[in-house]
Amino acid sequence: MDAAPRDAAQPQEPGKPRYLEDVRVGERIRTGEFLLTAEFVRDFAAIYDPQPMHLDETAAKRTVFGGLVASGWQTLAITMRLMVEARPLGATPLVGVAVDELRFLRPVRPGDRLYVEAEVLEVRTSRTRPERGTLRLRVETCDREGRPVATQLWTAVLPTCPVESGR
Amino acid sequence: MDAAPRDAAQPQEPGKPRYLEDVRVGERIRTGEFLLTAEFVRDFAAIYDPQPMHLDETAAKRTVFGGLVASGWQTLAITMRLMVEARPLGATPLVGVAVDELRFLRPVRPGDRLYVEAEVLEVRTSRTRPERGTLRLRVETCDREGRPVATQLWTAVLPTCPVESGR
Repeated sequence: MDAAPRDAAQPQEPGKPRYLEDVRVGERIRTGEFLLTAEFVRDFAAIYDPQPMHLDETAAKRTVFGGLVASGWQTLAITMRLMVEARPLGATPLVGVAVDELRFLRPVRPGDRLYVEAEVLEVRTSRTRPERGTLRLRVETCDREGRPVATQLWTAVLPTCPVESGR
Repeated sequence: MDAAPRDAAQPQEPGKPRYLEDVRVGERIRTGEFLLTAEFVRDFAAIYDPQPMHLDETAAKRTVFGGLVASGWQTLAITMRLMVEARPLGATPLVGVAVDELRFLRPVRPGDRLYVEAEVLEVRTSRTRPERGTLRLRVETCDREGRPVATQLWTAVLPTCPVESGR
């Protein structure tokens, strides 16, 4: 964890909070990039997914992957990092409540540079709790050649505009 | 990362590989436990989910969570670690291709001790590739009181028994 973009994220200007009413179906998000190194793949795997294809180049060669590959859960965690940094909701935090139709489409290898493209599919006010609602987003994680490595549908919860704001 | 079980997983005796034919619908897996500390929550968040409710106790108090909570992606990564260590497929690696119906049900806080219960729902041979097939598993991550914090359906791929094994 010695060099950007692999080190800890830097605090950024949060901007203003966005509320449910501010978000439109069809909005698109394109994040920055994240370079995955072999060291980073192994560091994650040692704690969270200690299997040969994620830990050791020699052992990984004997697996179906033919070499070191990132844990799918690391690819998803990087997807979150990229989405958080893109700040699609401004100062409003990105809080997920559900993920559907997650598919791992291609292995991710050291040296791959990932980015995320997302699109708002649905904006829905809660029937029972008028102070909040949900967004549904299609989230696609891609390699540098633009090939999707993972796709998923996120359901995120966010507040509706407070009455006292006068908006 | 100074003490078990938070440190890197120790290599274990892998046992024999299990093949698709060896797995039965209704098989259940109960994993060991994983203790989540505040340091561990912050370490993950700094890299993968840099938001106030995961990074800083004081800032987290001002969020809807009322205190530090683990990133949902860390809960899922811990779920993988626990499942890998439980070795439900013996020496055969645990390789996921899809996740469906993932729901985050309760926040996970420092001090929580997580375990996983899983059940095989379906065993299916590939129609186009007879050398492999898929398992579908219900995976439930629980806190020490047995309350589910996250539930999901995994589709994992594994080999069928090789003909040359003579089984």
